[in-house]
Amino acid sequence: MLPDKPNSYCGIFGIYGNQSSSIITYYGLHALQHRGQEASGIVSAEERENGKIIFNVHKSLGLVSEVYDDNILNNDLKGFAAIGHNRYSTTGASESRKNIQPFVVNYRMGHLSVAHNGNLTNAYILREKLVDDGAIFQTTSDTEVILHLIARSKLNDQVEQVKEALKLIEGAYCLVILTNDKLIAARDPHGFRPLVIGKLNGSFIISSETCALDINQAEYIRDVEPNEMIVIDRDVTSIENLKSFKIHETQPVKKQCIFEYIYFSRPDSRIFGHSVDKMRRKLGKILAKNHPVKDKEDQKVIVISVPDSSNTAALGYESQLIKDGIKAKFEIGLIRSHYIGRTFIIPGQHKREIGVRVKFNIVKGVLHNKTVVLVDDSIVRGTTSKQLVNLIKEAGPKEIHIRISSPPIINPCFYGMDFPSKEELIAYNMKSDIDKIREYLDVDSLEYLTIDELLDAMVEQEPEHFCTACFSGNYPTDINSSINKEVYEE
Amino acid sequence: MLPDKPNSYCGIFGIYGNQSSSIITYYGLHALQHRGQEASGIVSAEERENGKIIFNVHKSLGLVSEVYDDNILNNDLKGFAAIGHNRYSTTGASESRKNIQPFVVNYRMGHLSVAHNGNLTNAYILREKLVDDGAIFQTTSDTEVILHLIARSKLNDQVEQVKEALKLIEGAYCLVILTNDKLIAARDPHGFRPLVIGKLNGSFIISSETCALDINQAEYIRDVEPNEMIVIDRDVTSIENLKSFKIHETQPVKKQCIFEYIYFSRPDSRIFGHSVDKMRRKLGKILAKNHPVKDKEDQKVIVISVPDSSNTAALGYESQLIKDGIKAKFEIGLIRSHYIGRTFIIPGQHKREIGVRVKFNIVKGVLHNKTVVLVDDSIVRGTTSKQLVNLIKEAGPKEIHIRISSPPIINPCFYGMDFPSKEELIAYNMKSDIDKIREYLDVDSLEYLTIDELLDAMVEQEPEHFCTACFSGNYPTDINSSINKEVYEE
Amino acid sequence: MLPDKPNSYCGIFGIYGNQSSSIITYYGLHALQHRGQEASGIVSAEERENGKIIFNVHKSLGLVSEVYDDNILNNDLKGFAAIGHNRYSTTGASESRKNIQPFVVNYRMGHLSVAHNGNLTNAYILREKLVDDGAIFQTTSDTEVILHLIARSKLNDQVEQVKEALKLIEGAYCLVILTNDKLIAARDPHGFRPLVIGKLNGSFIISSETCALDINQAEYIRDVEPNEMIVIDRDVTSIENLKSFKIHETQPVKKQCIFEYIYFSRPDSRIFGHSVDKMRRKLGKILAKNHPVKDKEDQKVIVISVPDSSNTAALGYESQLIKDGIKAKFEIGLIRSHYIGRTFIIPGQHKREIGVRVKFNIVKGVLHNKTVVLVDDSIVRGTTSKQLVNLIKEAGPKEIHIRISSPPIINPCFYGMDFPSKEELIAYNMKSDIDKIREYLDVDSLEYLTIDELLDAMVEQEPEHFCTACFSGNYPTDINSSINKEVYEE
Amino acid sequence: MLPDKPNSYCGIFGIYGNQSSSIITYYGLHALQHRGQEASGIVSAEERENGKIIFNVHKSLGLVSEVYDDNILNNDLKGFAAIGHNRYSTTGASESRKNIQPFVVNYRMGHLSVAHNGNLTNAYILREKLVDDGAIFQTTSDTEVILHLIARSKLNDQVEQVKEALKLIEGAYCLVILTNDKLIAARDPHGFRPLVIGKLNGSFIISSETCALDINQAEYIRDVEPNEMIVIDRDVTSIENLKSFKIHETQPVKKQCIFEYIYFSRPDSRIFGHSVDKMRRKLGKILAKNHPVKDKEDQKVIVISVPDSSNTAALGYESQLIKDGIKAKFEIGLIRSHYIGRTFIIPGQHKREIGVRVKFNIVKGVLHNKTVVLVDDSIVRGTTSKQLVNLIKEAGPKEIHIRISSPPIINPCFYGMDFPSKEELIAYNMKSDIDKIREYLDVDSLEYLTIDELLDAMVEQEPEHFCTACFSGNYPTDINSSINKEVYEE
Repeated sequence: MLPDKPNSYCGIFGIYGNQSSSIITYYGLHALQHRGQEASGIVSAEERENGKIIFNVHKSLGLVSEVYDDNILNNDLKGFAAIGHNRYSTTGASESRKNIQPFVVNYRMGHLSVAHNGNLTNAYILREKLVDDGAIFQTTSDTEVILHLIARSKLNDQVEQVKEALKLIEGAYCLVILTNDKLIAARDPHGFRPLVIGKLNGSFIISSETCALDINQAEYIRDVEPNEMIVIDRDVTSIENLKSFKIHETQPVKKQCIFEYIYFSRPDSRIFGHSVDKMRRKLGKILAKNHPVKDKEDQKVIVISVPDSSNTAALGYESQLIKDGIKAKFEIGLIRSHYIGRTFIIPGQHKREIGVRVKFNIVKGVLHNKTVVLVDDSIVRGTTSKQLVNLIKEAGPKEIHIRISSPPIINPCFYGMDFPSKEELIAYNMKSDIDKIREYLDVDSLEYLTIDELLDAMVEQEPEHFCTACFSGNYPTDINSSINKEVYEE
Repeated sequence: MLPDKPNSYCGIFGIYGNQSSSIITYYGLHALQHRGQEASGIVSAEERENGKIIFNVHKSLGLVSEVYDDNILNNDLKGFAAIGHNRYSTTGASESRKNIQPFVVNYRMGHLSVAHNGNLTNAYILREKLVDDGAIFQTTSDTEVILHLIARSKLNDQVEQVKEALKLIEGAYCLVILTNDKLIAARDPHGFRPLVIGKLNGSFIISSETCALDINQAEYIRDVEPNEMIVIDRDVTSIENLKSFKIHETQPVKKQCIFEYIYFSRPDSRIFGHSVDKMRRKLGKILAKNHPVKDKEDQKVIVISVPDSSNTAALGYESQLIKDGIKAKFEIGLIRSHYIGRTFIIPGQHKREIGVRVKFNIVKGVLHNKTVVLVDDSIVRGTTSKQLVNLIKEAGPKEIHIRISSPPIINPCFYGMDFPSKEELIAYNMKSDIDKIREYLDVDSLEYLTIDELLDAMVEQEPEHFCTACFSGNYPTDINSSINKEVYEE
Repeated sequence: MLPDKPNSYCGIFGIYGNQSSSIITYYGLHALQHRGQEASGIVSAEERENGKIIFNVHKSLGLVSEVYDDNILNNDLKGFAAIGHNRYSTTGASESRKNIQPFVVNYRMGHLSVAHNGNLTNAYILREKLVDDGAIFQTTSDTEVILHLIARSKLNDQVEQVKEALKLIEGAYCLVILTNDKLIAARDPHGFRPLVIGKLNGSFIISSETCALDINQAEYIRDVEPNEMIVIDRDVTSIENLKSFKIHETQPVKKQCIFEYIYFSRPDSRIFGHSVDKMRRKLGKILAKNHPVKDKEDQKVIVISVPDSSNTAALGYESQLIKDGIKAKFEIGLIRSHYIGRTFIIPGQHKREIGVRVKFNIVKGVLHNKTVVLVDDSIVRGTTSKQLVNLIKEAGPKEIHIRISSPPIINPCFYGMDFPSKEELIAYNMKSDIDKIREYLDVDSLEYLTIDELLDAMVEQEPEHFCTACFSGNYPTDINSSINKEVYEE
Repeated sequence: MLPDKPNSYCGIFGIYGNQSSSIITYYGLHALQHRGQEASGIVSAEERENGKIIFNVHKSLGLVSEVYDDNILNNDLKGFAAIGHNRYSTTGASESRKNIQPFVVNYRMGHLSVAHNGNLTNAYILREKLVDDGAIFQTTSDTEVILHLIARSKLNDQVEQVKEALKLIEGAYCLVILTNDKLIAARDPHGFRPLVIGKLNGSFIISSETCALDINQAEYIRDVEPNEMIVIDRDVTSIENLKSFKIHETQPVKKQCIFEYIYFSRPDSRIFGHSVDKMRRKLGKILAKNHPVKDKEDQKVIVISVPDSSNTAALGYESQLIKDGIKAKFEIGLIRSHYIGRTFIIPGQHKREIGVRVKFNIVKGVLHNKTVVLVDDSIVRGTTSKQLVNLIKEAGPKEIHIRISSPPIINPCFYGMDFPSKEELIAYNMKSDIDKIREYLDVDSLEYLTIDELLDAMVEQEPEHFCTACFSGNYPTDINSSINKEVYEE
């Protein structure tokens, strides 16, 4: 993941009714690794011989491949159900260790574990009320608020307790909740983040994306709908008797995060009911249609991507150019290193310049004396783009053009996408003056998709069903309390 | 620590008003290492430049020397106040990791951190009530109950909140509590466990034993009294204005744990107002007076100890024998290895037999053809004693006698001493038939102190001021609820 | 790297005359990581204040990113010159730890360190002679023989000593040798493995491939020629006065390893005087020309690669198809996971099947109902290919065809390529019956390049300048003694 | 081990003819841990099913308890014979890692492994000759010289080869040598260091001290004699047919290291044919006889030791005082911490002063207002003694006297004892002016044993059979070349 790309807060996974729950969750989390690389955790529910239910927990900083081993999965995390979480975070080490999800607590109905993807916009207000009422908090995470709301419900049915709690929270959330005898999934009314239901033999799976079903050879059933709460327990033996509840009586227009299609989700996933690959390819095609590049001497234009995130858009861009009669060829001009772990060091001076060389190799012969179009999905800070351009220049291209398969980012996200501060966003900083950005990057041309073009690409979907706040500033919810939130966070 | 000795749950330490708080706590915890070797933690309160108070935490499984390093102490744990905890536990790794103290939470008055030595006897009942009221628990520790009680107090003064909480808990507790601006110490009305106050330049220290003051060259002021709560904040600049509060209006007779003198505390400490060395030496003397050993041919009797725990009693035993006209000489017949870490492995067959050889070397020349008295402080399971006797026999002594500076242990402790289950206690198992134990150990004689002799040794102290429940079964508090407690613990 | 691909023994790197030698070597080894992932080592020559030369060493199992840290590179490995080595090996942990290169010893002329890529075919005979003469060996590596030969030379000039030693060894070798005041590079007379010379400001670099020059922004000068020995010391200040020596008087025809072009080297490298990307692309083109695939209904044929190794060949294959009038489109149908570290575990049953899912994601939409050509560079055991085919089938393609950009592998390599044993080679096992292999893989067609087609692709180069022994069995050197070698190796 | 005590270079152990060789060696090395704490290694000889002998190696920095685990001992180090080594060293980490013994090499007769205790005085000269002859060295250790001498022997019988090599080396050596089918032990003609033979069922053991026999319940047979070489192989089934050889025809007067009795060896060992405990006790007695301490008011003098090294001397001192009619009592006034691992850190200021507090607890009540004699075995730098005195003063003693059970150390040792440089020896520095040392330590009196008194204590042994060079400067061998040795060492 490029250091200046936005980061989704996490990927979540849950399974009920399978004696290999933790192993299946492990593979699912591996498939969702792109949604969070800082930490990972699995909680499993195990039935002891005496009928007692215990919750097993393993959480640690690191990649899925670093956090678990055979012994942990086979012995420490036994159980008939499990939930898991991958997390991205920028906070300090000691704090973030406590914030690793899933959270697990005991309350009057038994064990309770929660994994959350998203960001609550009224967490601060809810927390203040809970604290006034004597609640103690172990973390700064908004997810802990949900636990307290469930535990404090005076209702006596666990499903009703969760529903009561969900009615109180606002913002973006996809949740998997594990109790002694249930797996509960929920998606906020706007449906900001994706959440899907799968089936593996007799057991049911909940996952952020379908790629985590595919790795387990599980079948995709359908999405968890915005405003829907799903309950899976022993009684649920077929798709027909999945228990589904509405969270709120009235449901707002859905507002799915369009950045999931642009960058977050894996191209081989199906989210919001559509193939990511197909949507991303469409972005590339519309980009080519409206923002083509031609070689002045009518030679083949070389289309390259920043692997792996913009491969699909670049392939779409190439095919549209050809369709429109422009000579073009997709090439792998940049090769991404497989050997950059989380802890790769950049010693010596000129760290910045060498950083990009360590991550990417450039295949000079492909670019030399050619008109090159670099298709990327977004520009955040602009620093990596600048270094990539410098790298490409070493190959001696005729011209360099950049095409971005999304509009300029100028606003913060309050629904779980971790952009740098406004001041670090190049498009905000340069007041959306694209020519100034082009000048900074020192390329022959630079063009972005407009918001309308972006929404045009969402074939078979309504434009108003997407949140485009990071581009447009139109936030679908009240965000005043979100801003206060920073008061109690470091 | 011998594997079959009882274990105290912990050692606690706190300091207020010193910029080297964590380093001083580190040394204090090292001095208290004998009270808990499984895990250690320090929490420090730091004031940031903007006046904001943050709490820094570092906790891990391992010895004090393994848990901390220079960077942690100097950079991660800065602060003007700190509390620390050493823990002994028998529970599994993942559970025990969560149970490492001090606990830290946020509640409506700010940060709150607690370290606890002892065991609450009504924790189960309190927990049930809290849980019914919507509280969520992260651990199985009775200490977490205290946090909830404080947080739920409707009072608005932090000192009053703590006092209100303390009024509700029963059993054994010595506590250090750190808040944004205070260090609070408390000792239960019976005063089961020791707790002392010290002074280092302008800052005040609370510690389980005085040895943690000595290592820091701090001055011993006095004990925290049973039923006393001490509050230290910025206003406390001299001993005179230490704030002291009674927890309960009426105070029961104090019931100090006599096992602290027999085995737990370090001989160079001063607890319950007296030198441990002096009390332990007195135990040896009374043991010799009433249970002497003489060589049949009037040769010197060789008095040896099990280092290091029974050294003092053995030295007392020798001096009394000599005083009573019996030829005797204290010798170091067993040498304890310095190289047994927590993780020492015993590969191969005959693990049991080699286990004791790995821990102790025997100096044969000292024992050969002599009448040997092995003075030990207690016998719990009896297995290590048996192996020690076998080891001593290899030296070819004339006779082997064992003298124990405490009575047979036949009852569980509900106040923080971690004995094995009743069935594993040799004295319980053999129905207090000392001759049967002697036969099992295969020695020429075996004698214990009686309870009366034990209390006689407590010079300058009232016999009724001690808890002797593990010997006598006379529990000073209601213990019914303690037994229920096991319901929710694994 | 796929588990059933052959592995080159290593990548080597050396630099002389730069105070950041180790840091430059570190980046060089990172760029050469594809040539060996098991272990890495750097040796630097440092001049102390008293004029004394010391050799600093750091070697360990692991990736370059795991083996070194800032402190090691900046403090432990100071020096004006350094050599480094990446190693691949299949031997056991304790043995391989000793075998990590560079080797460092002291002999009568001072320190001596060697890093070697290749395999000596007369190592066993030379070793026997040395051993008879009283030499002691620390490893089973053939590289240690070179050290002994240099040390035992009776000559008094170090360059002459090395030359004398090199005259005695046979087989494949590229060497970097560090002495107290020189960096010596050598390449065997057949030039089996690549070795290049670079320049960075005033200092000279030797490297297996040019990609290690590029990462350091060093200039490519020329290849070390087959049969050439290069000496760099303080006197060498410009390219003109690089000291060059012939190893043998007469020089055989060069026999460069054609597998370096097919698979080993990085596409962005220049080896044997040519761009790897260009050669590899040519392989794809000839493969398409002679072994095309057409869709029966004249739809677009989807060309996919096994990323990253066969990307270039697949791109070449696509462009030739189009040139030849066949509708075709290169697509990224398989996406390789970035999160598979060296230690990734595959728990649960069906390990084999899930193994490939963990490494590759399949983009179904791209392949569904299409005629798919999977272009790969080689098939070794065939097991991974089989699993990839199964994965592709899940996307529901119309047909699956496989095209291999090299001939079937049926012979072992004695020059440094680590194939599995003959019996594990699918083409050997199935007696080169390609239809039987096709049947095993269960695809619609399977075609390989022939040896002649392969050599045809080597544009601007003589066919006889390549070793094709693994395909043809024509070994350019006597290999009898190589077979004996296994006698003393485990 | 106190930081300013001299360190012996190592402990060695070997066993032949036992399928648990490595486990027995492990326990042996644990018992010999006091002879070297920096690193440990075991080499085992294993016979594979095909009759082939392989040598297994495991070596690492750390204590015996840290270096090995169950898997290493049971699986990696299988074999019918093994040798082991504990090492103390002051050299840097990377260098010392290579220097960890046993060394293992291959030479023309097969595998060869050597572990060495002692120091060769002509290593430098031998090494120069070997190097001139083409030998390559991997370490700076004098032990490597022995390997080369054996490998270069032109003789064809392995026993003769070893004998030939041993004839060439001078200085102090106890060796265990493992070959494909033999365990060879050797002790230098002066017999500087101890070496004993044991028997465990049908297998034979060689060890530095008898304590490593005792832990394994093996029987002590006899010492390896000075100038003796012992060969154990399959033919050796009983003590009678142990093969014994003289190294040199003529044998010098033996010169056993008297410091082994004073400090190095474990009190429960038997070395040089006598019990260490008995000799050490005698030192204390003669010290008391000639250098008594009396309380001015005829109160009991309190005799304390620095645990554990001077316990025995202090007990001897006490008993002699009493015998001579002086009122005295041995007390444990200082308690040594069990929790100081190798990596214990001393953060904060005043590191020196706190260092001694971290290692020792003082039992004040025992010393308050008493005349205290601190009996120690030696003073090296004097810094720890000074701090101990300061610690004792805190207890408020009437007077403090120090008695040392050896003479002042003023000369370096060339036979394997690692003193600090001459300038750091307090007695050398203060020109043997004991009163000046007393003044520095600030005690009421300070007395050492004289060399004559020391030798007097060696009951049943000839004074001329001991090396006292560190006290007297009378070196029993030519040491000129030893001084040159430092030329090639860092």
